[in-house]
Amino acid sequence: MSNTYPSRVTITEVGLRDGLQMESQFVPTEQKLKLLHALIDAGVRRFEATSFVSPRAVPQLADAADLLRQVRRRSDVTLAALAPNAKGIERALEAKADEVVVFISASETHNRKNLNRSRARSLEDMRQAADLVRGTGVHLHAAIAVAYGCPFEGGVALQEVERLASSFAELGFHGITLGDTTGMATPRLVRERVDMLQRKLPQLPVTLHFHNTRGIGLVNVVEGLKCGVTSFESSLGGIGGCPFAPGATGNICTEDTVHLLHELGVETGIDLGALCGVATEPENLLGYALPGQVMHAGPRSRRYAADEALCAGGSA
Amino acid sequence: MSNTYPSRVTITEVGLRDGLQMESQFVPTEQKLKLLHALIDAGVRRFEATSFVSPRAVPQLADAADLLRQVRRRSDVTLAALAPNAKGIERALEAKADEVVVFISASETHNRKNLNRSRARSLEDMRQAADLVRGTGVHLHAAIAVAYGCPFEGGVALQEVERLASSFAELGFHGITLGDTTGMATPRLVRERVDMLQRKLPQLPVTLHFHNTRGIGLVNVVEGLKCGVTSFESSLGGIGGCPFAPGATGNICTEDTVHLLHELGVETGIDLGALCGVATEPENLLGYALPGQVMHAGPRSRRYAADEALCAGGSA
Repeated sequence: MSNTYPSRVTITEVGLRDGLQMESQFVPTEQKLKLLHALIDAGVRRFEATSFVSPRAVPQLADAADLLRQVRRRSDVTLAALAPNAKGIERALEAKADEVVVFISASETHNRKNLNRSRARSLEDMRQAADLVRGTGVHLHAAIAVAYGCPFEGGVALQEVERLASSFAELGFHGITLGDTTGMATPRLVRERVDMLQRKLPQLPVTLHFHNTRGIGLVNVVEGLKCGVTSFESSLGGIGGCPFAPGATGNICTEDTVHLLHELGVETGIDLGALCGVATEPENLLGYALPGQVMHAGPRSRRYAADEALCAGGSA
Repeated sequence: MSNTYPSRVTITEVGLRDGLQMESQFVPTEQKLKLLHALIDAGVRRFEATSFVSPRAVPQLADAADLLRQVRRRSDVTLAALAPNAKGIERALEAKADEVVVFISASETHNRKNLNRSRARSLEDMRQAADLVRGTGVHLHAAIAVAYGCPFEGGVALQEVERLASSFAELGFHGITLGDTTGMATPRLVRERVDMLQRKLPQLPVTLHFHNTRGIGLVNVVEGLKCGVTSFESSLGGIGGCPFAPGATGNICTEDTVHLLHELGVETGIDLGALCGVATEPENLLGYALPGQVMHAGPRSRRYAADEALCAGGSA
């Protein structure tokens, strides 16, 4: 409950998975690899790189195995992959993902819509996932979708998050992400949920995953920092939209998050200038403007020459 | 230095001035009036309605006097108008603006670029403004542009803000706005500047005016709230860009700000649903998508039917 910030945090880049999954077009594997390698060069060390989901359901990520086979591996870089079921986990392990991420929704309706099964069934899948991954040395991570509220059911009780997280802890999961799937998180809910998890399940480190669907993704990041969270997920350029609201944004943007963190005195190990250089690439690939601000405006340290143009007439 | 929020704040809508001034097209007076009246109906009670600037320099606001003459006046609504010089102030008084706003930059270079004169000269103008307005019953307000940093000179010393604000206090100004003209504010700078002003010039209430140019406009609003500030400026739909960075956003968006405030338990007196209804109008008028999020996504309380479409394949 302190109001100081951690000195360093880890950013997990999710644009290649959560971002591209929302795009209508398939980005060629070669382009994905180019982005991955450029991001690694810029200092990013954790990626949600792809998802071992059915290629029919998500054709954008049909190259999951190819991507993991072709990427230049480094011992200091973690490549996580989502897997919605046992088959996906087996494929992820075979492709030597460093981390397997399984997910469940905090609400029954969202779980059925997102995964086409009940949460009771999903919890059985979690047990199977733990069995499959145990002993492989692969990091096993769980993500709770709609952890701050469900677009179908509304509010999500804190007890529901606690119940699911406790199951993950019992099954030996190594970490947990609270997913703000449709941008329903608020600072109050962030603090309440993080405080509960830190108090009741200190063995399960919390990662925060916010969407900027309602403009307050970075407000929630700051609240998470004040709670002592040191792991956040974000998407390059803000790639990826909202599955519900056409035109609304999805994931918080990596460059904007890194810029904020550095301005707060929180280290990320990422070179913001290099990151912004990479962030302009997806706009070219996808053919439209992405919501990222800092890549367009430059960091606040950017200087203009006094003879550069400026809107006349007085402005505050 | 508390970390609780005020129970109620005042929003000043600046879209019709600071927003439209950045647009390439002239929005007809009739449309501006329609927006103003609809916003008043939605509960907005303060406006930076226009600017009595040279119509040659800012043709978008050439109808300043017409606008103030034609708007339906209410005793509980404040219509402020900017004025860059004595002539503008005289025109604003003649048009019966409720409040006159004069401005100066915290850096010499920005003042010369923005107002085409030195700050020493601008301070003389301020004295003249005070003389002109004194005794009229009109509220006299000052705005300090680039109060958190200058795109030409870089950092702005706290002492510079103090020096200018002290002059305003001596001249009998009724309030002061710290303008984050090009989105260089950070939470640390907000706290430092607001704390200083509250301590040294408690007679001069502070209004905060943030731009979202680097994605953290609402983060700065939250910091302002925690400092006890109860007056913020924002722009409907986020109308208006950045005078320097094409594609980057300008003012923070009114609906997104109001949504955040309500979620924090801070009252605004504004009906968010009605406000979002008005906010979609400027997109039609201007012909392109504005950066506002909540008007596209709906408030977090928005519910979807369980049979509505959703991106398949699992997402956190």
